[in-house]
Amino acid sequence: MIILGIDPGTIIAGFCIMNVLDKKISIFDYGIIKFNRKMMLQSRIFQFYNDINELIVKHNVECISLETPYLGENAQSFLKLGYLRGIIYLICEQKKIILREFAPTAIKLQVAGSGRATKEEVQVMIKKLFPKIGNFETLDASDAVAIALCGAMEIKR
Amino acid sequence: MIILGIDPGTIIAGFCIMNVLDKKISIFDYGIIKFNRKMMLQSRIFQFYNDINELIVKHNVECISLETPYLGENAQSFLKLGYLRGIIYLICEQKKIILREFAPTAIKLQVAGSGRATKEEVQVMIKKLFPKIGNFETLDASDAVAIALCGAMEIKR
Repeated sequence: MIILGIDPGTIIAGFCIMNVLDKKISIFDYGIIKFNRKMMLQSRIFQFYNDINELIVKHNVECISLETPYLGENAQSFLKLGYLRGIIYLICEQKKIILREFAPTAIKLQVAGSGRATKEEVQVMIKKLFPKIGNFETLDASDAVAIALCGAMEIKR
Repeated sequence: MIILGIDPGTIIAGFCIMNVLDKKISIFDYGIIKFNRKMMLQSRIFQFYNDINELIVKHNVECISLETPYLGENAQSFLKLGYLRGIIYLICEQKKIILREFAPTAIKLQVAGSGRATKEEVQVMIKKLFPKIGNFETLDASDAVAIALCGAMEIKR
């Protein structure tokens, strides 16, 4: 089972392609999608749609793993997250991909042992769990690995 | 110029196809897209994408008119609105359609003469402006006509 974990964002989005084979979990690919800040929002949404579709086709993704959304202090960020999540929902229906969503606390608990772990602590634990992994350019990529890992653990169980 | 006004919603979405020719504004089509409440959210988003695309192709839509979003009391409704708006942004980029957005108060002011007009008052004014129009099934359809009208008035100017 090939899982795509996504940490959506309209400036940087993190992704991770993870494989579960015979109860063994391995990382095939991970990284970030960077958007040009000068690009209009609708152009970024279009790029996100195309880039995610490209990852799905390239790796034969069968399952997408996401974090459930929560309304923070910034309503505009929440709305932009909605735009990208709408695109992910559309892709799942178009490509018949299974969608799994996990609460932020459940992801932190699974990966770092505490629902209150920081993004930095999550990154440290990801590096311990996957020692062959290189350095992360940003916290978005390690977050995406953590999100993918929750999907992978669910499949393993 | 053919304009599509949309009032997005995950239970009922209103739409209106409006034409501006030689500074004359006419309505080609209007109505609602109803979603089965038992359908999963991602299936509704997929239906919305397909139905809006169908309207665009059928009527050669060149411009989409929308209301700008505002965070009401319900954060979940705001997020769902984000899902559908993300789909509209994607369609605009995919089909090279002009997008125009208007504040709710600007739409009410344009149509009913007051930024504080109710949806019912907007519907009454729409019926006065377009006497040949039939009865509206819901307020979503008359809202979509009002939203399309703002796009049409901008083009006329």
